[in-house]
Amino acid sequence: MRFLDLIEAKKRGDALAPDRWSAAIRAIVAGGVPDYQIAALLMAVRWRGMDAAEAVALTEAMIDSGERWKFDAPPGPLVDKHSTGGVGDKVSLVLAPLAAACGCAVPMVSGRGLGHSGGTLDKLETIPGFRTDLSREAFARQLDAIGVAMGAQTEHLVPADRILYALRDATATVDEPGLITASILSKKIAEGASALVLDVKVGRGAFLGSIEATRELALRLLSTARGAGLATTALLTDMDQPLGRAVGNALEVREALACLRGEGPEALRQITLELTAEMLLLGGIERSRDRALQLATRELDAGAALEKFRDLIAAQGGDPAIVDAPDRLPAATDTGDLVATADGFLLDLDPLAVGRASVALRAGRDTREAAIDPGAGVVLHAVRGEEVRAGQPWATMHFGSGADLDTAARLLERAATFGDAAPSPRPLIIERHA
Amino acid sequence: MRFLDLIEAKKRGDALAPDRWSAAIRAIVAGGVPDYQIAALLMAVRWRGMDAAEAVALTEAMIDSGERWKFDAPPGPLVDKHSTGGVGDKVSLVLAPLAAACGCAVPMVSGRGLGHSGGTLDKLETIPGFRTDLSREAFARQLDAIGVAMGAQTEHLVPADRILYALRDATATVDEPGLITASILSKKIAEGASALVLDVKVGRGAFLGSIEATRELALRLLSTARGAGLATTALLTDMDQPLGRAVGNALEVREALACLRGEGPEALRQITLELTAEMLLLGGIERSRDRALQLATRELDAGAALEKFRDLIAAQGGDPAIVDAPDRLPAATDTGDLVATADGFLLDLDPLAVGRASVALRAGRDTREAAIDPGAGVVLHAVRGEEVRAGQPWATMHFGSGADLDTAARLLERAATFGDAAPSPRPLIIERHA
Repeated sequence: MRFLDLIEAKKRGDALAPDRWSAAIRAIVAGGVPDYQIAALLMAVRWRGMDAAEAVALTEAMIDSGERWKFDAPPGPLVDKHSTGGVGDKVSLVLAPLAAACGCAVPMVSGRGLGHSGGTLDKLETIPGFRTDLSREAFARQLDAIGVAMGAQTEHLVPADRILYALRDATATVDEPGLITASILSKKIAEGASALVLDVKVGRGAFLGSIEATRELALRLLSTARGAGLATTALLTDMDQPLGRAVGNALEVREALACLRGEGPEALRQITLELTAEMLLLGGIERSRDRALQLATRELDAGAALEKFRDLIAAQGGDPAIVDAPDRLPAATDTGDLVATADGFLLDLDPLAVGRASVALRAGRDTREAAIDPGAGVVLHAVRGEEVRAGQPWATMHFGSGADLDTAARLLERAATFGDAAPSPRPLIIERHA
Repeated sequence: MRFLDLIEAKKRGDALAPDRWSAAIRAIVAGGVPDYQIAALLMAVRWRGMDAAEAVALTEAMIDSGERWKFDAPPGPLVDKHSTGGVGDKVSLVLAPLAAACGCAVPMVSGRGLGHSGGTLDKLETIPGFRTDLSREAFARQLDAIGVAMGAQTEHLVPADRILYALRDATATVDEPGLITASILSKKIAEGASALVLDVKVGRGAFLGSIEATRELALRLLSTARGAGLATTALLTDMDQPLGRAVGNALEVREALACLRGEGPEALRQITLELTAEMLLLGGIERSRDRALQLATRELDAGAALEKFRDLIAAQGGDPAIVDAPDRLPAATDTGDLVATADGFLLDLDPLAVGRASVALRAGRDTREAAIDPGAGVVLHAVRGEEVRAGQPWATMHFGSGADLDTAARLLERAATFGDAAPSPRPLIIERHA
């Protein structure tokens, strides 16, 4: 195979046969293809797209580029969740222990935040001592023992994805549905999941713009997962406002702990229960959505998920005392309020601007290498539809050294729209595709 | 400027403003842009194309990437010719000395052959001692002295083009009209030409397929040249058959010498006179095409062009005795004939296949690094429309060691179509655009 011929074929708009995709990925991982040829192929793929068979073929070729994990004695069906990312999305912190408490085994390989989107690894690492760099063996032992492990992609898990992702990121080719699909699904299949729930975000805080493009991605993910033998359900959920009240790593862990104690916030609780219920259905633990929702609600309210989270922290070297004493989590040195200038209602809060404000406060990173401040972020005292009083703070910025407070404040002020009457409510779960 | 933003903008289909093109080229030449980002931009340009203003901006940015040659006392208007390349195209060898003999100054920077297309430098270098690696100073001295110099692109002449061309070649992005245009015109303007005649080839031996795509390229070249201040005329000429009877480097020099002595072949003579006449018009040496054609014909037939070619060879270190004794040129060690199986007419001869046959005989190269055999090639005893006799050779292959004779013979046999009646003649000059 000449790699140049693949570029030429894709440039012309041809679909590449599975053996050409597998040869391409083998050559790339073997180091036999110069980066500029990979980059040209990626842009040609961004131009011409990939058909359903190509997405399956690329997914399988990427899985074959590294290890495929297997577990000796998982305590339940191997089910995972993936979110396309958003602002304030701490669902995994509640959902993974909850699903495990309900009888699933959750082998969750997660990522870091970039741009306005947060990342589960960054949040977990604010827990003192918590390690996310689990070896394959440690991951497997823990999954067999307590039914949940949350770690970073290892060097040997889908190495093709690391190469391609770094190049996509540097060549404006991240936003191609086939490439996105193969990247997500290859990691989930390689980590050992046999079923997957997808939380596909819709709205200004999501990485895709329109509902149509988002739905198309969800359907593409479903059909490719099916083609690759992974049972999958997708929920399209609202990311036109931040999820919950906390945006920022340790702040979100605190909010997740509150949710695990049954204290809300309501949106986080609802979306987590819905997604967990889908996992229970896919895992065969319950036969109906109502019963699955009941089981998840019961285990959450009974504190079983909180205890599972405590076990998870202990197993990964973290300080389990934070569960009862969240004040042991890192906190920002300074705070600053955004104050309402008149009585009224919060009509709208642009999650993209809130996410950018959190980056300005160093709760997130604009470049992969940037350091983050674990205690920094934004706490919303009012969310969409809630009342504000003149002179009262509607949000508080948490920050330390290196924060760009002016930018953060300006972004937050522009992000919020206030008015005299409460807006009509908006659904949290927008569509379900299975 | 972040280069990633340029890729993103081009990917979305934006036209890039002139200052962005110049910043991009400056960054590329300074070595500040990784090859994979350049490759991604090239494929995005191949996808979205370039508008007229962008092609002008890229051309000017590429000129500014290196030296811009000026001449102290050129003996006439600085006019050059560029051909988009073909099979048996030895026009430059006749045209450059002829135009100089007619009063133009011809600063011709040429290239090498690749694939089925030949290159002027390869042909000139078959002349014993002839040097094409002229310094800027040597080039200028010679142009001022005898009105014609034919050399290779130097290191400092449009360095951006070398970087971009190598990447285009490796990423299937050679065939983009804006990039082609900027590559051609930047070199011609940087070498000091103030007017340019374009010989844009049409047919199976040309690098673009259809007449429509070829015309579009010609019009693009004209409008961009105009935007960049270069007076230009384009002729669309036939490359649906080889030009003349010789294909192969020393063989073509012999044919060029024959043409300079007034011996034809007719197609080479006609196209050279037409293109030279356009140069005389653009240079202001004659006011009408008829008079320009008369002057060129007179100087060719008077032997003035032949004498100018002798001066050129001497000035560039070559053996001027080859002009009177072409047998001093390198010759292949072996020959092999292709014999007609029946009486009839040559109806058609696919130039692409003839070009490929010449590569198989090592008269050309498939990769940039391959060595060529200067004496190798094909001589056509019959061209389109001419009669053949059963048992008589219609073509002779010239070759030495390393030739793939079977492939060459098979290609030539398939290239030719014979029939009972002479085909209707086809025009050599298809369209003129000014």
